[in-house]
Amino acid sequence: MVTILMSLIFTDRRMALKQISSNKCFGGLQKVFEHESVELKCKMKFAVYLPPKAETGKCPALYWLSGLTCTEQNFISKSGYHQAASEHGLVVIFLWQVRNFKQGASDCIWFSKIELTYNFFFFLKSVSAFAPICNPVLCPWGKKAFTGYLGTDQSKWKTYDATHLVKSYPGSQLDILIDQGKDDQFLSDGQLLPDNFIAACTEKKIPVVFRLQEGYDHSYYFIATFIADHIRHHAKYLNA
Amino acid sequence: MVTILMSLIFTDRRMALKQISSNKCFGGLQKVFEHESVELKCKMKFAVYLPPKAETGKCPALYWLSGLTCTEQNFISKSGYHQAASEHGLVVIFLWQVRNFKQGASDCIWFSKIELTYNFFFFLKSVSAFAPICNPVLCPWGKKAFTGYLGTDQSKWKTYDATHLVKSYPGSQLDILIDQGKDDQFLSDGQLLPDNFIAACTEKKIPVVFRLQEGYDHSYYFIATFIADHIRHHAKYLNA
Repeated sequence: MVTILMSLIFTDRRMALKQISSNKCFGGLQKVFEHESVELKCKMKFAVYLPPKAETGKCPALYWLSGLTCTEQNFISKSGYHQAASEHGLVVIFLWQVRNFKQGASDCIWFSKIELTYNFFFFLKSVSAFAPICNPVLCPWGKKAFTGYLGTDQSKWKTYDATHLVKSYPGSQLDILIDQGKDDQFLSDGQLLPDNFIAACTEKKIPVVFRLQEGYDHSYYFIATFIADHIRHHAKYLNA
Repeated sequence: MVTILMSLIFTDRRMALKQISSNKCFGGLQKVFEHESVELKCKMKFAVYLPPKAETGKCPALYWLSGLTCTEQNFISKSGYHQAASEHGLVVIFLWQVRNFKQGASDCIWFSKIELTYNFFFFLKSVSAFAPICNPVLCPWGKKAFTGYLGTDQSKWKTYDATHLVKSYPGSQLDILIDQGKDDQFLSDGQLLPDNFIAACTEKKIPVVFRLQEGYDHSYYFIATFIADHIRHHAKYLNA
């Protein structure tokens, strides 16, 4: 529970939790909680999966950041991630994104920062993503979101853009896995721009495993197909 | 496609199909179709999963009959069945249940027959179920549904009740697998009555593997946990 409580502090420093649901799944427990967020001035939900191993010992935690229009429910009911998380003994935490730009305003910048890396799993050493918006300062979705969260001063936007961040990344070696559906309509619409991110990584000599998956779209059927690979990718580091 | 067309004929003899969606998943395709049902006098949907093997050859088909309040979406998006169906090369067909007792009236008796065996997979030799309503003539849900579909003459009800049907089952050997969550609220409410079905099977010397799963409820988290076992159970016969 220590890991979970840490995540709660990360979400909001002052909140009372209410458990909404708890369902056994692959030997573990899928829980959903609600709390009144002081920072964001609204009710927020988040979900936590506790693998069977959590009954008897500490387990590392993995965060899932959902994409646009998602609540915590999309991922926990549609991605089929439970089996792999259960087998690898990982706690998985799902944050709900804020939809109203007016809510929280500047207080929720940290939230917008992770929110704009849509459909990302992250842990400090390893990162993985499904069809992420790689260069939001250049795409319509990103421009709309940044204007809403950060205002019209575009100089502020780059610090929340994965392609720009990687150009100045000073940290330790990252292990990045990205799956992208080749038939994803948002890829052809120019919303995702993975080439820009890969080019920036190449320039910085940061290795990226980018898998363009033939015939797959932007749906949860795509995510469900490859989710076990992503859990395994993180488990290598989390269970090391 | 032969198998699928056969299923369409089974659903309704006179209909024009409209494809609603098609998503690649575990190498196969999850499709949803809509049609105007002449028999039931309403729009109906059904879903078909085509495994990768269907691209190059014939595949056997398995039918999923969803439970109360379900559309074709519940199962195809929440059960996580695709991986096992893909691996075993099974076409899986999902029928949508009729909700309005007034619709179709006597024409839809065949539909009510399968509908009242909630959450069942069926193929002629093998049957499996998740938390089924085993003896509907004796439970509140069954009484309500039978009254709606068949009227108040209770003598007609028994031919649509699994426990009564098994008592007079003249057919070949069946292989029945049932998973039941021990913490399922509908089990403790007396809606499911699996003991009556098991007793009838025991009397007829029909073997049933009944697994009472500790801590599991009636949700799709329960189904997702054990779905691969059920697909494997049917694949033994379908791929024999």
